[in-house]
Amino acid sequence: MLGQEPDAVTRIGCIGAGPIGGGWSAYFLARGYQVSCYLHDAGEYDPLMRLLETAWQSLEQIGLADGASLSNFHWSTDLGEATANCEFIQESVPEVLQLKQELYRQLGDIVDPGVVIASSTSGLSMTDIQAQCATPERTVVGHPFNPPYLLPLVEMIGGEKTSAATVEWTERFYRAAGKSPLLLKKEVPGFIATRLQEAIWREALHMVANGEATVEQIDQAVVNGPGPRWALMGPCEIFHVGGGEGGMAYCLDQFGPALKLPWTRLVAPELTPELRNAMVDGCIEMTGGEDFEALSRKMNQGLVEIARMKHERQQ
Amino acid sequence: MLGQEPDAVTRIGCIGAGPIGGGWSAYFLARGYQVSCYLHDAGEYDPLMRLLETAWQSLEQIGLADGASLSNFHWSTDLGEATANCEFIQESVPEVLQLKQELYRQLGDIVDPGVVIASSTSGLSMTDIQAQCATPERTVVGHPFNPPYLLPLVEMIGGEKTSAATVEWTERFYRAAGKSPLLLKKEVPGFIATRLQEAIWREALHMVANGEATVEQIDQAVVNGPGPRWALMGPCEIFHVGGGEGGMAYCLDQFGPALKLPWTRLVAPELTPELRNAMVDGCIEMTGGEDFEALSRKMNQGLVEIARMKHERQQ
Repeated sequence: MLGQEPDAVTRIGCIGAGPIGGGWSAYFLARGYQVSCYLHDAGEYDPLMRLLETAWQSLEQIGLADGASLSNFHWSTDLGEATANCEFIQESVPEVLQLKQELYRQLGDIVDPGVVIASSTSGLSMTDIQAQCATPERTVVGHPFNPPYLLPLVEMIGGEKTSAATVEWTERFYRAAGKSPLLLKKEVPGFIATRLQEAIWREALHMVANGEATVEQIDQAVVNGPGPRWALMGPCEIFHVGGGEGGMAYCLDQFGPALKLPWTRLVAPELTPELRNAMVDGCIEMTGGEDFEALSRKMNQGLVEIARMKHERQQ
Repeated sequence: MLGQEPDAVTRIGCIGAGPIGGGWSAYFLARGYQVSCYLHDAGEYDPLMRLLETAWQSLEQIGLADGASLSNFHWSTDLGEATANCEFIQESVPEVLQLKQELYRQLGDIVDPGVVIASSTSGLSMTDIQAQCATPERTVVGHPFNPPYLLPLVEMIGGEKTSAATVEWTERFYRAAGKSPLLLKKEVPGFIATRLQEAIWREALHMVANGEATVEQIDQAVVNGPGPRWALMGPCEIFHVGGGEGGMAYCLDQFGPALKLPWTRLVAPELTPELRNAMVDGCIEMTGGEDFEALSRKMNQGLVEIARMKHERQQ
C-alpha cells in the first residue's frame, strides 16, 4: 500500500550529491518541494551548493513554482535522518552494483514500505539493484537525462519484484512534478535514449579512428545539420515528415535498400514487412494523422526559432 | 581559371525542382541572388512555387538580405537557357548515377569551364558523377541538409579530377552565401551527418524490431532527452562538458569500458590509446581551451532558451 497520492507529495528525499543527485535536488526545489538530501560526506556540501546555485539561475528563467525556494533544501550525513518523513526518494549514488545493493538493503529496512524509491541508474537493472532489499516491490528505475533540471525525460522500468502499483504511482508522480516519464517495455541495458546516443557516439569514434572526420567536423555536422531538428522531432517523425506526402511509407519503400549500404559500421537489421509496417503505423499513430503540411509547418517554425535563438546568442 | 570571385557572385543556376533543388532556390533568393532554375518538365512549376512560398515565410522571419525577392526567380526547361550567364551552379537532380553522369556530360560542354558546378548528392561520389564530363576539374559535391533554406550545413568533397582551386573557391562561396561548409577529408559514403543520422536510425529500427520500444517512445526519448542538446552542441562536446572538470579524458577513461556493453547493435570500435588521445585533443582544440564552467553555462543558457521556445509553441 503506497502512502501518499502522487500529486500530494510535498517532501522528497534525494540520495547522492553528484551532478545527477544535485540536479534532481535543484529540480524538485524549483517545483516547490521540500528536499532532504543525503550526503555521503559533509565535504560534498560546498560543491553541491555551487551546483544548486548554478542550476537555480536557469530554473528561475524557466519559471519557479509557487513557494519554490533554495531554503527548502535540507541535508544530513545520516541516512535515517535524511530520509525520515519523505514521501518519495530519488537515489543517485555512483553506478556500482554492490554499492546500490547495500544501500537498498538499508533503505528497505529504514524507509516506510509505502514510500517509493526510484533509482537514477543509467546502466544497472532494478532486478539486480533490489536483490538484497527486504521491501523490493516499491523500488523502480527513474533514469533522468543530464542535466535533470533542464531535460524532462525520465526513463522508467521496474525490476522483477517491483509491483505494478509502484510503476503506476511513480509515473503519475513524475508527471505531477512536471517531468516526461517514459515507461519502458523491457529491462534493456542503456534503455532508449542512452542507446540512441551511444549509436551516434560509436559512429563518431569510428570516423575519428579511420581518419574520416575530426572531432570538430563531427560536432559541426550535428549542430549545423540534424541537431536542431532533433530538439523538435525524433528520428521517426523526421523521416515521416521528410517523406513528404508519402510519409514514413515512402521513406522506407524508397530508401529501405540504403540500409544495406555501408554508411555506418552498425550491422543493419533485416527490414522485414513486419518491421516496415510497425514503423509506418507507429508514425501515423504518433502524429494523430496530422498531415504533411501541418507537420512540416510545425517543424519549420521550430527551426526558425532555434536559428534566431542561436543568432542572438552569438551577439 | 575560375571566373568570378566567390563573394562577387550574383547569379546562380539551380538544376532540379524537388525539395532540395527548390530549397536551394529559396535560400539563394533570400540571400539576394538572382536564381535561374532548370525544370525537367514545366509541370514541376506549380509545386515548386508552393515550395518557394512556404520557404519564404520562414526566410522572412529569419531576415532577408538587401534586394532579396521572389521576383529574382527565373526558370526554363532548356538546360542551356537556364544555365546561361550563371556564375555558380547547384545541381539537385534525383540520386541516379546514370542520370547525373549524362547531365554532367552535357553541362561540361555548355557551361563556361570557369563556373563551378556543385552537386547536392547525398550518396554518390563526385569521382563517379564527373566520369563523363569533359571539364571535371570544376565539379564538386556540396551536400546540404534538408531543408537547405533553414539548416546551414553543406558537406563538401571533390572527386579525383576536381581541382584544389575549385574546392577552395566553393568553400569561400558557400561561406559568403551564409552557409556552413564542411570540407571532408575523404570521399566516404554518407559523408558525416548522414552517417550519424543513419546510426541513430538503425538503432531505432532494431528497437522496434525487437519490441524494445515503440516509434513514439523513441521520438519522445530524443526530444525530451538528448535532442535539445544536439541543437547546441555535437556529441563530442557534450561528452566533453558531461565529463565535468575532467572533460573528454574523464569520460573516456571512466566510460570507455561501457563501449563493450551491448548497449547498441553497432559493433564497437577498439578504443586504442591513439583514438582516445585523438578524441581528447580534438575536444580541447575545438573549444579553444574554454573551461567547463564556461561551456556548461553556454549549454545551459541554450537549453533554457529551447525549453522556453517549446513551451511558447505549446500555448
